[in-house]
Amino acid sequence: MPHRTIATLAEFRVALAGQPVPDASAIEVARRRNGQLTKPPAALGRLEDIAIWYAGWRGTARPCLERPQVIIFAGNHGVTARGVSAFPAEVTVQMVANFQAGGAAINQLAKTFGAKMDVHALDLDCPTADFTEGPAMSEAEVTAALTTGWNAVDPEADLLVTGEMGIGNTTAASAIAAALFGDDPEAWTGRGTGVSDAGLALKTRIVGEALNRNPDRDPLAVLQNLGGRELAAMAGAIARARAERIPVILDGFICTAAAATLARAQAGALDHCIAGHVSAEGAHGPMLQRLGLTPLLDLGMRLGEGSGAALAIGILKGAIACHSGMATFAEAGVSDA
Amino acid sequence: MPHRTIATLAEFRVALAGQPVPDASAIEVARRRNGQLTKPPAALGRLEDIAIWYAGWRGTARPCLERPQVIIFAGNHGVTARGVSAFPAEVTVQMVANFQAGGAAINQLAKTFGAKMDVHALDLDCPTADFTEGPAMSEAEVTAALTTGWNAVDPEADLLVTGEMGIGNTTAASAIAAALFGDDPEAWTGRGTGVSDAGLALKTRIVGEALNRNPDRDPLAVLQNLGGRELAAMAGAIARARAERIPVILDGFICTAAAATLARAQAGALDHCIAGHVSAEGAHGPMLQRLGLTPLLDLGMRLGEGSGAALAIGILKGAIACHSGMATFAEAGVSDA
Repeated sequence: MPHRTIATLAEFRVALAGQPVPDASAIEVARRRNGQLTKPPAALGRLEDIAIWYAGWRGTARPCLERPQVIIFAGNHGVTARGVSAFPAEVTVQMVANFQAGGAAINQLAKTFGAKMDVHALDLDCPTADFTEGPAMSEAEVTAALTTGWNAVDPEADLLVTGEMGIGNTTAASAIAAALFGDDPEAWTGRGTGVSDAGLALKTRIVGEALNRNPDRDPLAVLQNLGGRELAAMAGAIARARAERIPVILDGFICTAAAATLARAQAGALDHCIAGHVSAEGAHGPMLQRLGLTPLLDLGMRLGEGSGAALAIGILKGAIACHSGMATFAEAGVSDA
Repeated sequence: MPHRTIATLAEFRVALAGQPVPDASAIEVARRRNGQLTKPPAALGRLEDIAIWYAGWRGTARPCLERPQVIIFAGNHGVTARGVSAFPAEVTVQMVANFQAGGAAINQLAKTFGAKMDVHALDLDCPTADFTEGPAMSEAEVTAALTTGWNAVDPEADLLVTGEMGIGNTTAASAIAAALFGDDPEAWTGRGTGVSDAGLALKTRIVGEALNRNPDRDPLAVLQNLGGRELAAMAGAIARARAERIPVILDGFICTAAAATLARAQAGALDHCIAGHVSAEGAHGPMLQRLGLTPLLDLGMRLGEGSGAALAIGILKGAIACHSGMATFAEAGVSDA
């Protein structure tokens, strides 16, 4: 069902349940190869695990990583009317123009790591509803956003990074995290792009209101009621990548919140994903822990746009280049231990 | 004094004392530019500090990073006769051939990050003396190795990674660390490429013997008496990079031990260096702490060859690409907070 329209959440749920699994024989051969490379056992640490994991998803014991894709989804949020962000809502559309002109951080990072970058602005002139007053999206709206994400993935890509832009979307991500992981607004709400103490208190109160107003805790209902179009699109893209056996590097707090709805809807739905970094947004680390994900980088970043994940493309490239390019002890005539 | 012979340690000491400092005006302009880029303040975390630091060393507020150089130095160690390594000593020369043939991990990483790579084998058929019996090197030998390192740096490079290969050299690095940081062999000795419990006990005892047999704690005497040719060459290359205002990414335990002798010989001698990663070799983290260095990566690597530092080239490239390539709020027409 690659290029398609997702008509209902029920249909998306079915798609999630029938996703591919890693290729056990590619993993086995990759593991054997790893043991023969000219290095002491385990000396490349996590790079070795990454290469074997990547081999499993790509279905080949000696894979290449040559066509990474970065997709940025942008959406606007009705909850910004409540003053939850340090930046005005018009920054979303201004930053989309900046992405298109090549001036944002993610443009530089995509270029540095040889990734093609696509930008999808989702109905920016029609923000989601304020979720303290009711669901953020209708089922038609959330499925349209999932479809946009699903169709945005290039089936020829061999790695995916999903990023986002949406003033107010840390509030949506906090509400999702709280709904999925235990309804404590304080534990999951942070400063986003840099709100004040008073701003943080307001944001926390608003997350609490959103949780009360939207009591359904089904993970995809949480995505619809507390998410935003760019979050749903990221979820759709991450699911599509799985269907195409394309590994995904997750970005920060908002991307991980979107991904978490998949993990809660279907066990193992993020097995093809790795955490690119842990954000300075305080609740990101605990969210990764709940999902069993260990970040590759911890550099105090909190920009979104897929920036932390894009930086981690280099780590994956290095890991896979070592695995697939190194000589074995026998090939190099090096004495084994 | 760029291309030169270092005749004595005293002469090298004088060179260390007269090294350049960062360009304060480039730092000031870079800092101002950083504050105007299209992102919330500090949202790129450590990438922002890296870019400003790099700008200061390169003497330009909007630098490029296009010509990284990786240099691998190889040396043999008399102490291997005591059975301190899991691998036989002939692996050093075999791995040099592997570097030259392009089959090692560092070859793949250098290629991935667009670095030119040079290999210098230092008198492999003439191992250093067993330092449990006397100094590892004469003053003539250590200064020859320093000179090799000094002259190996390409003055046109804009970033340097120094790596090493030398069976037995974690024992030398442990002895150096213990001599510089407090004479406790157990605290600074680890498993290297993977010795057993009994091997670790032997290695620790040998480090203790080396410390007793070589009581001079002058940092450059420590390098001569407890180091090895590849460690001295790394120290020479790191010092030369400073003379050329080329920032350096330090690699793991052995590279950092070599660098530590410079830091102890001359305060601030590593100001142009950043720690690429923290190694799985247990004493590396404490050594970085003593030097006030915070690693960029923590991926359980313990290979040497400059591999952890080479992987961090991508982080520096990303940081500098963002700093120099991003649009400002004014350029992009984005509303500031």
